[in-house]
Amino acid sequence: VTLVCHLAEGERARATVRPVARDEAEVLAANAAFYEAFSSRDITGMLELWSQERDVVCIHPGWQILRGRASVSASWRAILSNPESPRVRAEDARALFLGDTAIVTCAEVLFEGVLAATNVFAREAGTWKLVAHQAGPARTAPATRDDGELLN
Amino acid sequence: VTLVCHLAEGERARATVRPVARDEAEVLAANAAFYEAFSSRDITGMLELWSQERDVVCIHPGWQILRGRASVSASWRAILSNPESPRVRAEDARALFLGDTAIVTCAEVLFEGVLAATNVFAREAGTWKLVAHQAGPARTAPATRDDGELLN
Repeated sequence: VTLVCHLAEGERARATVRPVARDEAEVLAANAAFYEAFSSRDITGMLELWSQERDVVCIHPGWQILRGRASVSASWRAILSNPESPRVRAEDARALFLGDTAIVTCAEVLFEGVLAATNVFAREAGTWKLVAHQAGPARTAPATRDDGELLN
Repeated sequence: VTLVCHLAEGERARATVRPVARDEAEVLAANAAFYEAFSSRDITGMLELWSQERDVVCIHPGWQILRGRASVSASWRAILSNPESPRVRAEDARALFLGDTAIVTCAEVLFEGVLAATNVFAREAGTWKLVAHQAGPARTAPATRDDGELLN
């Protein structure tokens, strides 16, 4: 990982001088916890990972858009209370940061195939909480990357 | 739209006291411009909508994860230079805000069916620029909403 720290004005300066490596480890741990809760059908753990302070949105593959904590929570209760819900392993997770917001993308490896996901986390009282999740079909090939032009 | 403005500490306070209605109009206009560029196969317009200052990520349905501006730009050049690329109409677009970051979700209505998308925008020099896009299959029914518990 190449850290690019350059001084700019206002918000960007605050974002870029923060210790990015620690942020990255923390948000990737939160992302791993999401898939651990998913795979172990841990409803309580899943709901604790989602923000309780902010609005949230979730797009499960093939579902309608779910907006607001009540709809999102109900969807996870339905999915994780199903004894046939899939085991999901995250691979190739990478984070990019916008101040106190982190966008994590990763492959979701299921027995049935591979999805790709966008998981947006917000920092709340020192912990990273989910505010948005979308998963959808993806190609199984590894992610395409530029040659390290920026942080990720 | 019910505006919930409450005072909190530091960043959250700054985020919540900002004039949200204007931000919402601006970011939804940027989201509409994205689908206009898509539908009119306007490569230059599409690439201008993406951030040039930050890292970016894009997940087209069925593709591998594309990380970094070069990979993302190449994908749009390939898609939009195809005379058979789909016309896409955005419906039911809604934004939620995390400081200078906005997460827009919407339905993407194509001739062939309906997708759902998560589009993340960052404010740069007063304009909203795309930093992340994912589209994937969705149900055609309208989005599910909580009863206005929060901003959106």
